[in-house]
Amino acid sequence: MSSIKEGIHDHLIELQEEIDCIFTAGRNTKVSEVNIGQIYGGMRGVVALACNTSYVDPYSGLHIGDYTTDNFSHKLPEEIFFLLSTGKFPEAESLAEFQNDLNQRAQVPQYVWDVLRNLPRDTHPMTMLSLGILSMENESVFKREYQKGIEKRNYWKYTLEDALNILAKLPSLAAGIYRIRFGNGVLIAHDSKLDWSGNLVHMLGIPDGDKSFADLMRLYLVLHCDHEGGNVSAFTSRVVNSALSDLYYAVSAGLNGLAGPLHGLANQECLQFILKIDEQLSDQVSEEELKAYVLDVLDSGKVIPGYGHAVLRVTDPRFTAFMKFGEENCSNSSCFKIAKKLFSVVPDILKNYKEGKIANPYPNVDAMSGSLLHHFGLKQFDYYTVLFGVSRVMGFCAQNILAQGLGQPIIRPKSVTNKWVLENLAVKKK
Amino acid sequence: MSSIKEGIHDHLIELQEEIDCIFTAGRNTKVSEVNIGQIYGGMRGVVALACNTSYVDPYSGLHIGDYTTDNFSHKLPEEIFFLLSTGKFPEAESLAEFQNDLNQRAQVPQYVWDVLRNLPRDTHPMTMLSLGILSMENESVFKREYQKGIEKRNYWKYTLEDALNILAKLPSLAAGIYRIRFGNGVLIAHDSKLDWSGNLVHMLGIPDGDKSFADLMRLYLVLHCDHEGGNVSAFTSRVVNSALSDLYYAVSAGLNGLAGPLHGLANQECLQFILKIDEQLSDQVSEEELKAYVLDVLDSGKVIPGYGHAVLRVTDPRFTAFMKFGEENCSNSSCFKIAKKLFSVVPDILKNYKEGKIANPYPNVDAMSGSLLHHFGLKQFDYYTVLFGVSRVMGFCAQNILAQGLGQPIIRPKSVTNKWVLENLAVKKK
Ligand SMILES: CC(C)(COP(=O)(O)OP(=O)(O)OC[C@H]1O[C@@H](n2cnc3c(N)ncnc32)[C@H](O)[C@@H]1OP(=O)(O)O)[C@@H](O)C(=O)NCCC(=O)NCCS
Ligand SMILES: CC(C)(COP(=O)(O)OP(=O)(O)OC[C@H]1O[C@@H](n2cnc3c(N)ncnc32)[C@H](O)[C@@H]1OP(=O)(O)O)[C@@H](O)C(=O)NCCC(=O)NCCS
Repeated sequence: MSSIKEGIHDHLIELQEEIDCIFTAGRNTKVSEVNIGQIYGGMRGVVALACNTSYVDPYSGLHIGDYTTDNFSHKLPEEIFFLLSTGKFPEAESLAEFQNDLNQRAQVPQYVWDVLRNLPRDTHPMTMLSLGILSMENESVFKREYQKGIEKRNYWKYTLEDALNILAKLPSLAAGIYRIRFGNGVLIAHDSKLDWSGNLVHMLGIPDGDKSFADLMRLYLVLHCDHEGGNVSAFTSRVVNSALSDLYYAVSAGLNGLAGPLHGLANQECLQFILKIDEQLSDQVSEEELKAYVLDVLDSGKVIPGYGHAVLRVTDPRFTAFMKFGEENCSNSSCFKIAKKLFSVVPDILKNYKEGKIANPYPNVDAMSGSLLHHFGLKQFDYYTVLFGVSRVMGFCAQNILAQGLGQPIIRPKSVTNKWVLENLAVKKK
Repeated sequence: MSSIKEGIHDHLIELQEEIDCIFTAGRNTKVSEVNIGQIYGGMRGVVALACNTSYVDPYSGLHIGDYTTDNFSHKLPEEIFFLLSTGKFPEAESLAEFQNDLNQRAQVPQYVWDVLRNLPRDTHPMTMLSLGILSMENESVFKREYQKGIEKRNYWKYTLEDALNILAKLPSLAAGIYRIRFGNGVLIAHDSKLDWSGNLVHMLGIPDGDKSFADLMRLYLVLHCDHEGGNVSAFTSRVVNSALSDLYYAVSAGLNGLAGPLHGLANQECLQFILKIDEQLSDQVSEEELKAYVLDVLDSGKVIPGYGHAVLRVTDPRFTAFMKFGEENCSNSSCFKIAKKLFSVVPDILKNYKEGKIANPYPNVDAMSGSLLHHFGLKQFDYYTVLFGVSRVMGFCAQNILAQGLGQPIIRPKSVTNKWVLENLAVKKK
């Protein structure tokens, strides 16, 4: 059996050999072009980054190593982190060792709670999560060792230490935020007998949570783990870490991106949207009524939350996985029913709206996840992005560990002004 | 006279007209290519972004609107923010109005201090600055209004509100951090009769600060304001804001990037480097001794802080501006003398090191700034990046306001794996 550290070490050797081949064959080979529309348009469609944790295919969705959603949706989050960072699922012994290691690092320092309890009472839970991580920046092993002077080829080892410390504390931190923000503020202790997602469920302390809730949480934490390198939050965390800002800085920054309504916060907006439909039209709403409602929203200049994607061009397989879970576990819930009905009307509407300008009319993962959480008693949708964050931090960590292990330099594209474009690209102002 | 808001409004119309021309002439015109080396190499040299606040020319350095360093190094930071966001310097009346507005927003909420005082005592001041901003996220006007439902074309107006609130509080926040972290923790009150940088100097409360210190601070805050769109911190803040995460999230994330040793923290490392030389070799060190010392550092696998740049290919004009200030105000200071001597030996060494691989052997702004701050009594080099941050937030804010005003979408390049490269680019693994 090999530890996660050995697994990463071996994976890095493999990846480096591939890169050596690639560079030998042609470092200057063109990968893509950037046109004027794209420099003003958020680099959409520009292949600009190498990221070896995962890959999003426009048609088959998320791939992690050799696996797709079907293969990993029954795993534990710990197994997924192993997969993201070593390219392989762990053997049973390696997994147990890894889980044990996480358990030993799980204690959140007291000052973090003091800091969080001093924020305004209605601070968004995502802000609390990001701030909680940032407040521990002083604990960074990477930073301490970097200051002493370490070799570049060893950076990733210290970053792995930081990753393990952050990941280990995430369930306690996230659950604590829930209890401070929405409960009576009394924290529930971490239980070393439980696994990572089991602990989160335990420490949230949602009353009447049945067994399916723990299952849902496991699925949720698995499905949100990573989505290649170019999405706002992962990219942010990689850009920050590329300047050798430690993982506490990088993870906090990534979470700040995830908090955006066009990115992670969409899942909160989705449920709000669904609850509003439930309130105004009920889960008995007819297709016709629902269509009219959706069109009204679009005409008022707003987006339909949970639909569209920068890369995907089909229904997100993660949506499908959640839908399957819903069918099996809560097919009678109002929110689930409405989410399903939306799925049957929204794509056709979006296809024809804005003269076909909407690149992807299909649902992404957010269109379903919130409805399930709500059904199982997690009613505070302000909190959903925190769960997304807990999961996604696995991706941030794995991406940064691999990039550092491969010696990837600081990220620094060039920007230009309108004036530059007008002067250099033979487009003259009238 | 026009207010900053009117100025931005007019500037946006102008910029939008230019973009309309550009798009009409050819949205698909190629701007640049991305090759394999660049997807593994941090997009170096890829023109990937439009940014209209400033532009860095490899040979003439920073341009803001029609001005270069020579033109703006005698201005106030408030004038520079006006220039960054409206494209013009303010008239006297507009400036006074803007300063007055900032003064009225300067009060930092009490809870920010409570949060900061609960952090471990040896937390890095940059972490405190980022965390201080993030702790106020709940005050975001953009977020509040976005939740109510606002039109896309008005986003920038609410983001401007957030920008003004953040900028106004920065001197108090930064000075408070200095006094909590390095002083007795007693804060000095903001003085509405002083300008933005004058207030910072006042609230730092450095004993024996002479008039030149205030002048240095003004120059420092002007010179660090912005450096186009692709540097780690500005880019981070833009990526985060592109998901419509509000400016508190975006600014905090940008500061997390600035805290990296390869980026903003370099200025702290520079001074450390110079002080070590002072201690080990004194400011009387001969050129030969200094050369040997620098070579030793390089051979041990470390970089020479303050030298090199991702875009610049000459001595940074901001370095030159600081050097001039040093000659005029503290030519006898040990640190200044050593920084000057380094300037006379390092470029030649770097040119010949690593087979000419170092793209820019010349000093950047960090190679001089710390020595000056140190001479004028600001001895805690851990704090220097905070000053860099206070200034650079102007750039983050202006970039995001303009990008939102021009309706720029979420930033989302595509990433690929080694496997993808091997399969798609006719480079086969041996
Ligand atoms: C995800 C998202 C940000 C991707 O953005 P993108 O890559 O720019 O998407 P497109 O290229 O399809 O955008 C083209 C146009 O279609 C619009 N569009 C895309 N998805 C839309 C939706 N769900 N509802 C309404 N309009 C939509 C865009 O706003 C854009 O219009 P504009 O040019 O007038 O601004 C976008 O689809 C969206 O806002 N979706 C809703 C929020 C959401 O679910 N986010 C979570 C994603 S995991
Ligand atoms: C600023 C900086 C990060 C730019 O990075 P970059 O664009 O990748 O620089 P280059 O293309 O010149 O890098 C090519 C090689 O030269 C090296 N190099 C660049 N500047 C160097 C320096 N000052 N001392 C030693 N080596 C240097 C790089 O480390 C790299 O070596 P590697 O391939 O073995 O890793 C880099 O010059 C640096 O680390 N400088 C010192 C820190 C600093 O002053 N930062 C503040 C910048 S505002």
